[in-house]
Amino acid sequence: MTTPLSRYFLSIALSIFTFSIAAADDWKPLFDGKSFDGWKQLGGKAEYSIEKGEIVGRSVADTPNSFLTTEKNYTDFVLEFEFWVQDGLNSGVQFRSMSKPEYRDGRVHGYQYELDTSSRAWTAGIFDEANRGWLYPVEYNSTARSLFKNEQWNRGRIECVGNEVQTFLNGRQVSHLVDDRAITGFIGLQVHSIRDASHANYQVRWRNLRINTKSPELSRSEDIYIRNVAPNTLSKPEKNRGWEFLFDGKNTAAWKGTSNVDPFNKNGWIVKNGSLTIQPGGKGGQIVTKKTYGAFELDFDFNLAKGANSGVKYFVVDHAEPGASKSQYLGLEYQVLDDKVHPDGVKGAVGNRTTASLYDLIPSYRKVNTRNVPLYIGKWNHGRIVSHLNGTIEHWLNGFKVVEYERGTNIYEVLIARSKYAEIENFGLSEEGHILLQDHKDLVSYRSIKIREL
Amino acid sequence: MTTPLSRYFLSIALSIFTFSIAAADDWKPLFDGKSFDGWKQLGGKAEYSIEKGEIVGRSVADTPNSFLTTEKNYTDFVLEFEFWVQDGLNSGVQFRSMSKPEYRDGRVHGYQYELDTSSRAWTAGIFDEANRGWLYPVEYNSTARSLFKNEQWNRGRIECVGNEVQTFLNGRQVSHLVDDRAITGFIGLQVHSIRDASHANYQVRWRNLRINTKSPELSRSEDIYIRNVAPNTLSKPEKNRGWEFLFDGKNTAAWKGTSNVDPFNKNGWIVKNGSLTIQPGGKGGQIVTKKTYGAFELDFDFNLAKGANSGVKYFVVDHAEPGASKSQYLGLEYQVLDDKVHPDGVKGAVGNRTTASLYDLIPSYRKVNTRNVPLYIGKWNHGRIVSHLNGTIEHWLNGFKVVEYERGTNIYEVLIARSKYAEIENFGLSEEGHILLQDHKDLVSYRSIKIREL
Repeated sequence: MTTPLSRYFLSIALSIFTFSIAAADDWKPLFDGKSFDGWKQLGGKAEYSIEKGEIVGRSVADTPNSFLTTEKNYTDFVLEFEFWVQDGLNSGVQFRSMSKPEYRDGRVHGYQYELDTSSRAWTAGIFDEANRGWLYPVEYNSTARSLFKNEQWNRGRIECVGNEVQTFLNGRQVSHLVDDRAITGFIGLQVHSIRDASHANYQVRWRNLRINTKSPELSRSEDIYIRNVAPNTLSKPEKNRGWEFLFDGKNTAAWKGTSNVDPFNKNGWIVKNGSLTIQPGGKGGQIVTKKTYGAFELDFDFNLAKGANSGVKYFVVDHAEPGASKSQYLGLEYQVLDDKVHPDGVKGAVGNRTTASLYDLIPSYRKVNTRNVPLYIGKWNHGRIVSHLNGTIEHWLNGFKVVEYERGTNIYEVLIARSKYAEIENFGLSEEGHILLQDHKDLVSYRSIKIREL
Repeated sequence: MTTPLSRYFLSIALSIFTFSIAAADDWKPLFDGKSFDGWKQLGGKAEYSIEKGEIVGRSVADTPNSFLTTEKNYTDFVLEFEFWVQDGLNSGVQFRSMSKPEYRDGRVHGYQYELDTSSRAWTAGIFDEANRGWLYPVEYNSTARSLFKNEQWNRGRIECVGNEVQTFLNGRQVSHLVDDRAITGFIGLQVHSIRDASHANYQVRWRNLRINTKSPELSRSEDIYIRNVAPNTLSKPEKNRGWEFLFDGKNTAAWKGTSNVDPFNKNGWIVKNGSLTIQPGGKGGQIVTKKTYGAFELDFDFNLAKGANSGVKYFVVDHAEPGASKSQYLGLEYQVLDDKVHPDGVKGAVGNRTTASLYDLIPSYRKVNTRNVPLYIGKWNHGRIVSHLNGTIEHWLNGFKVVEYERGTNIYEVLIARSKYAEIENFGLSEEGHILLQDHKDLVSYRSIKIREL
């Protein structure tokens, strides 16, 4: 099946306004339509052939991931291609990728533009093959999950300039990644290994591959989430959107303590190696932002020692009586916990004290779109809280939305009334509040804490 | 301010397909543009004048609702008019209305096409002035709440044929009412009384009033909720949409008992005067529909004696162990209770055992769009449950949506886990279930029980 030509040209016409225009002769075909000159096969033994000027990859049983790769390396470029994938096959387009004897015996690794026929529908998401895994799961931009056309020709586009990557599918932007590496590498057409022998001889096809290395430019980004995996950095597009640091690896000026103890001394919160770390058994106490926030987007990385407990609270206000000697900062909590080891992980109800849960209120989903939501111990996790102008609040963990609710509704009220917060008047209902990091005297580190007001 | 002409004509062009086309000469102007010939003023002393061929009503302090009414009466007709309302004023267009010495000293009463500048935005809803109150609050069709253009000219249309009324605003349908009366009466232009003297001299304007009594026809209804206030009747448009009776005032064949007691004898559920009534202190037991339902819309009227308790359950399945001697029908409950008097009304949490609440789970809103949601004792109330195909479920009470939730989410799970249903496995999660009426041995009546599958 192919798309009717008229629809195809219409969608090209519509997308022209999004993309930067490069002179026609800045583009070079990446494949001559006749031969594999300039290409070589790496990895598994999937079959690659040329039919009707198209590259056809066919899956083969009992072989690992296979890659037909360019001999040349590319750093900054815009790549365009069309692809057709048989339902049931997973595939991808590698870029800035490598195969080196010293890395896992030549295992192909690097960025992959995902081709995904499954119900997850993450086509055009960015996966770091045989390395860091998913960098831009399409959950971040879930409306883009409907762009892929199953067993039809689709148009892909990859823009790599400096440390930014943008991907497009059928004329719409899918992902926007900022990385700390601007590496060089080959382009490669993947045929994924298959688990089920009945999926042997499944096809993926590519055609009209062309590359622009002369005038590569990033298109103006659509208003989608920008995922920056470079620790403690703010990229230019993030700054343009209004993102600011609450902690950039060094500066703690955005924070103050809530106890009489100075949190930033050797007893409390320690800044070291780009991290803000709770001193185990220390006396730092909670810290809160000096500013308050209403509608906002908060991004942070956290790293839990085994069994450790902390938390990120928001809409935090001081509930102490006027004139009280001690402050009582309370708010809604994004739980941060080694929930498999720490005893609080199984308390509360149906898992509502696990990491990324709205603490003691709403459990974090452990599965989203059939995928397990990962939580790493002793490694960095990525947390995200979005408080929308319309009152909806989202918790994200490692690329998955795991909690969504609305403050002040009848459901919110009953959740509060049947939680440990039942006796606190107007709990979590202030118009604005501080962000708070919780000190449970356990070894927990934070970094890349960023916020933007909505 | 007026709408740009081009937009005006565009919207006329778009709406032409909705309305039945009447020959041009079937229409008669209702107002000659120059004089109030054929009109008279009733009720209060608001000022009516003619300016630029428009009827201008001006509010006056310390006077009741005023009406400029036609001397003629109309039964079946289509009425079109344009109106402009000053922000802050409430107004309306009466139709099939009357003023009779024997009814409250000539008080004007009858249908009103509401003109509503408040944030509630119920313009083109149907109110029964000085009689039954709101018959079609625009909550039933809440997307229509955005159709009214404040301090601009709007186009109204009223279709009255037989016992059906349809109203339109700026080319879109707002309400669809089925009544048990097809009365005759005048048309009247209302200026509402004002509470705040600073609102004196506020204006409402009407122009281009025309009526078709020669070939009045109902336009094909948009897919909006049809409110039928005639007890135990199914109108033709409801039948076309797939509505069926579960109880029509006489027939109980859709139901069966869940105990060994025959519910339809003198000890149980009694059919009398068009009602299905629980015998106080009787032994009817619960009754359930013989059929099961998944996605459905359920409509019912209920009438509570003082202090009485009942309930309408759905997604009801028998949770008894295989081979058990007694059935155990359990499901999600739309609470039916005199919640001000019965002690259960204040149990549970934050009102989640009041009428129309999802029993012991989610409290019914008592206010919607600044309006108190009424509950009548010893009179008929209108209940409604919608179980959408997408998994969302709504509870309605007397024209207001008071509960909305989704089965099976993380929020649903924690609500269950912290309720009286905590120990019941898979509570409320079956794909389909019976509808159940609860017998608490209190005097509660039901009528007009209708269902349609979605």
